[in-house]
Amino acid sequence: MNSVNAILLLSCPDQKGLVATVSNFVFQHNGNIIHADQHTSQTTGLFFMRLEWNLDHFDIPREEIGEVIKPLAEQFGMTWHLQFSDYVPRIALFVSRHVHCFHDLILRKRMGEFKADIPLVISNHPELIPLIEHLGVHSEYIPITPETKLAQEDKELALLKEYRIDFVVLARYMQILSGKFVSAYPHRIINIHHSFLPAFAGSKPYQQAYDRGVKIIGATSHYVTEILDDGPIIAQDVTKISHRDSVEDIMLKGKDLERIVLARAVRLHAENRILVHGSKTVIFE
Amino acid sequence: MNSVNAILLLSCPDQKGLVATVSNFVFQHNGNIIHADQHTSQTTGLFFMRLEWNLDHFDIPREEIGEVIKPLAEQFGMTWHLQFSDYVPRIALFVSRHVHCFHDLILRKRMGEFKADIPLVISNHPELIPLIEHLGVHSEYIPITPETKLAQEDKELALLKEYRIDFVVLARYMQILSGKFVSAYPHRIINIHHSFLPAFAGSKPYQQAYDRGVKIIGATSHYVTEILDDGPIIAQDVTKISHRDSVEDIMLKGKDLERIVLARAVRLHAENRILVHGSKTVIFE
Amino acid sequence: MNSVNAILLLSCPDQKGLVATVSNFVFQHNGNIIHADQHTSQTTGLFFMRLEWNLDHFDIPREEIGEVIKPLAEQFGMTWHLQFSDYVPRIALFVSRHVHCFHDLILRKRMGEFKADIPLVISNHPELIPLIEHLGVHSEYIPITPETKLAQEDKELALLKEYRIDFVVLARYMQILSGKFVSAYPHRIINIHHSFLPAFAGSKPYQQAYDRGVKIIGATSHYVTEILDDGPIIAQDVTKISHRDSVEDIMLKGKDLERIVLARAVRLHAENRILVHGSKTVIFE
Amino acid sequence: MNSVNAILLLSCPDQKGLVATVSNFVFQHNGNIIHADQHTSQTTGLFFMRLEWNLDHFDIPREEIGEVIKPLAEQFGMTWHLQFSDYVPRIALFVSRHVHCFHDLILRKRMGEFKADIPLVISNHPELIPLIEHLGVHSEYIPITPETKLAQEDKELALLKEYRIDFVVLARYMQILSGKFVSAYPHRIINIHHSFLPAFAGSKPYQQAYDRGVKIIGATSHYVTEILDDGPIIAQDVTKISHRDSVEDIMLKGKDLERIVLARAVRLHAENRILVHGSKTVIFE
Repeated sequence: MNSVNAILLLSCPDQKGLVATVSNFVFQHNGNIIHADQHTSQTTGLFFMRLEWNLDHFDIPREEIGEVIKPLAEQFGMTWHLQFSDYVPRIALFVSRHVHCFHDLILRKRMGEFKADIPLVISNHPELIPLIEHLGVHSEYIPITPETKLAQEDKELALLKEYRIDFVVLARYMQILSGKFVSAYPHRIINIHHSFLPAFAGSKPYQQAYDRGVKIIGATSHYVTEILDDGPIIAQDVTKISHRDSVEDIMLKGKDLERIVLARAVRLHAENRILVHGSKTVIFE
Repeated sequence: MNSVNAILLLSCPDQKGLVATVSNFVFQHNGNIIHADQHTSQTTGLFFMRLEWNLDHFDIPREEIGEVIKPLAEQFGMTWHLQFSDYVPRIALFVSRHVHCFHDLILRKRMGEFKADIPLVISNHPELIPLIEHLGVHSEYIPITPETKLAQEDKELALLKEYRIDFVVLARYMQILSGKFVSAYPHRIINIHHSFLPAFAGSKPYQQAYDRGVKIIGATSHYVTEILDDGPIIAQDVTKISHRDSVEDIMLKGKDLERIVLARAVRLHAENRILVHGSKTVIFE
Repeated sequence: MNSVNAILLLSCPDQKGLVATVSNFVFQHNGNIIHADQHTSQTTGLFFMRLEWNLDHFDIPREEIGEVIKPLAEQFGMTWHLQFSDYVPRIALFVSRHVHCFHDLILRKRMGEFKADIPLVISNHPELIPLIEHLGVHSEYIPITPETKLAQEDKELALLKEYRIDFVVLARYMQILSGKFVSAYPHRIINIHHSFLPAFAGSKPYQQAYDRGVKIIGATSHYVTEILDDGPIIAQDVTKISHRDSVEDIMLKGKDLERIVLARAVRLHAENRILVHGSKTVIFE
Repeated sequence: MNSVNAILLLSCPDQKGLVATVSNFVFQHNGNIIHADQHTSQTTGLFFMRLEWNLDHFDIPREEIGEVIKPLAEQFGMTWHLQFSDYVPRIALFVSRHVHCFHDLILRKRMGEFKADIPLVISNHPELIPLIEHLGVHSEYIPITPETKLAQEDKELALLKEYRIDFVVLARYMQILSGKFVSAYPHRIINIHHSFLPAFAGSKPYQQAYDRGVKIIGATSHYVTEILDDGPIIAQDVTKISHRDSVEDIMLKGKDLERIVLARAVRLHAENRILVHGSKTVIFE
């Protein structure tokens, strides 16, 4: 049976009775909790929760659930987001010259590793367009120069709207987005940086890692904010290297990290498992 | 403020209203939930929960909490265990010839890495006794031969009782315990096996790993059951090896794994974070 | 400059003067050693070496090098294999129903992550053929039943010959090869098994891992021998799981391991970095 | 048989015939090479080698080997270091308030995990002195204030000389050494920094990691240079954390990393397995 679940993400100041109130709400309306996960940050005094319940015998129609939650949320000062498990989020991929993350995401989507559509790919490199179209994905070539940047970004924002995009994934996209663009999709733009942030922010992180002589390299997926490589971290992974590894070897090993770490972030976001507070994330796996 | 928390571990068949009922119980008696973690096994239909709440304004005296929980638990068919955060569990260490895990646990205890007492160490090797006593720990030398085994185990069981031991840790203890002994402390005897179980069960796992030519070795902490190296797994960790590693190199690398994996299991058990079902564990970290 | 290197892999009983003799041979003929790696197994008394040198000013023509090595090798009882860095090995991929490893290898080859051609893909599932052909790779549909197995394998062996295949990669191929087939390509058939061997050999390893309640899962690439899942191990990797992971979650996490571990084995073999002795491998990375 | 090996570490500009010349030297004097490892850095054009050979039938007396190597080394412009396997290096441990690395190294030494003596421990905290002496190790209490720093360091340098110390290990020593001190033991002072350098250099790295919201923490052992936390990295390791980990949890997990990573560096240095070039290390494992 493919019945539908409701997924509620919420955060608020910690206080007595939060778990009881929220779980009672589901129980009293005859819902069955499938997953419940909560976290209280001792340093900020904030409470975070992800609740997933089955709607099979739930006695509130799904289109009215939000209305019923509203007063409850106001009472506790909750920020909240409600989604349903049959909704398929829509991703726009941005890609430049390096295509391994792009290919990886397209393949994972096809093999059903995460539930999302990719109706739009934007590239600032014309040579990728035929390749993308060959894969049956709609693509737009939008070159960026310092002079055209803001105008081109407006075009991109219009496309995101036209294609009803839920979130943007920068799959090794080599352009820095403007503040305007970033603020149009707050915590909805995911980037992959090919280092273990905060080490080696900025350009050529593998070269930086080689020059510093580290024994482990990493990759970091994070939400994009206005400060470069500084947004809330979603996932990280690392692998060992040695003095035998040239910069090219490091790049090769790093590509596997990038693919895995970016795919993990995309899946977590698509499944509504991430709550952001300040510069940090709570991940409900 | 060093106020006391109650920690409730429970499991029962999954059913609607479990989270609501349990969290209501705490809320209505004015308790503040510090941590709540639950899990539903889709294959067995079992529900597991660990609930930790602060007793500062809780309106049931701690010695009566169990009585109040009882009818609630019966209603849902719950197996449950209640403990308080100011209780310091008492461990008996069993040790043979290899002392790295023994030393490691003594040191971690001293440095406060887990909250437990170690009032008793039992060794079947006489040469360890002065070393153990030098560390200020009470020890008993109990040699084991096939003929004396059952009688000596009775002596050990009497000591465990005398010292009010909560759980036993086999820190590379090289004797197989009898069924009688094991069943006296069900899911309360923790062993460290120096392989990635179920690979290389039995004796000389590092030699077995070397002979097979694996590229990764491991260590496994588990509860002891009557079948050797077959009990519910608590923690595992691994490290890479190569053709350059001799059996001695593998042993050396393995010792670090053993220390970490056994210490992790001891801490998890001491903090009431483990629920056993069948041959598996639920770990609430 | 894309000059050519010679790569010599050798093994023999350990004895004095081996490194000196081999490196002198290169030096006296005006070769420049790029990489030299050796290993002596203390348990077997065997010596292994991989030597890579540049042929730019080497004074023996490449087609005669083998002839000159022959008497040297005989003197020390060496088993040896000579190859040149401009040779592109030819791979046949065998694939069944799970296509993630197949896709991964095709993509890595395209992106230049290893140097090899894949002129032939064989599948026992007809529905994959159009997909494979769409990727521009030649494929053959060869169904296998217990009755047709040996005849069909003869057809496969003929194809391997026709396409001048150097080594075979079983990219989640779900058929057990006959002894005849295996012995036609000794240490030249690479399989990926989706467990941390020797744990969970045989069928449904992820289900086995779930049932046993392990906390870490793995994948193993190995050479195929006549005994199932028992050949010399080339590479292994692992990832952590918890009680929260269903069999489906474990499969998903395992797929990333399988891709990486199989790709690593293919690259190592294609670059002549593997020496087999008995049931073990020496890997010169 | 406990026969003695010679261990030669060397580096020089890469050139033809290096491996042949060095291995011939050993062969012609009837030595048996036990391990040989070399590396050529493509970016710097430098050649590095570690050669270990058995002296059983070597026809040069050990005290004259250096003299024979000298002209060979001059011919190729080699920097070199010769040591014998029966030499036991002498370590001075510096320790402040955190004692886990100190205890770990003392225990590993006792259990024979590395071959070195620890004849001297220096602490700037008086309360550690009785603890250290109880372990049977000689200790000196040398408090440091900004005013007394240079004078106290002179006292320390005198002690290092008196105790014929080969290398210094800062086992979570919380004082920054002066340039004078550092230059007296170039590449012979090993520090453990409790972060994944270059991330979180300086003070309170675990707090920094918590504040940044990273998903992985690390530890780094490195040689001390005049610039804080900037010296050549010897070893690094990492472990995963999540939003559930408080700063205290991170510290606890980090302590295991620190112990392992520092012990690895001490063993590598004691066994003459490290060559430094510029800000990087070559590690011959």
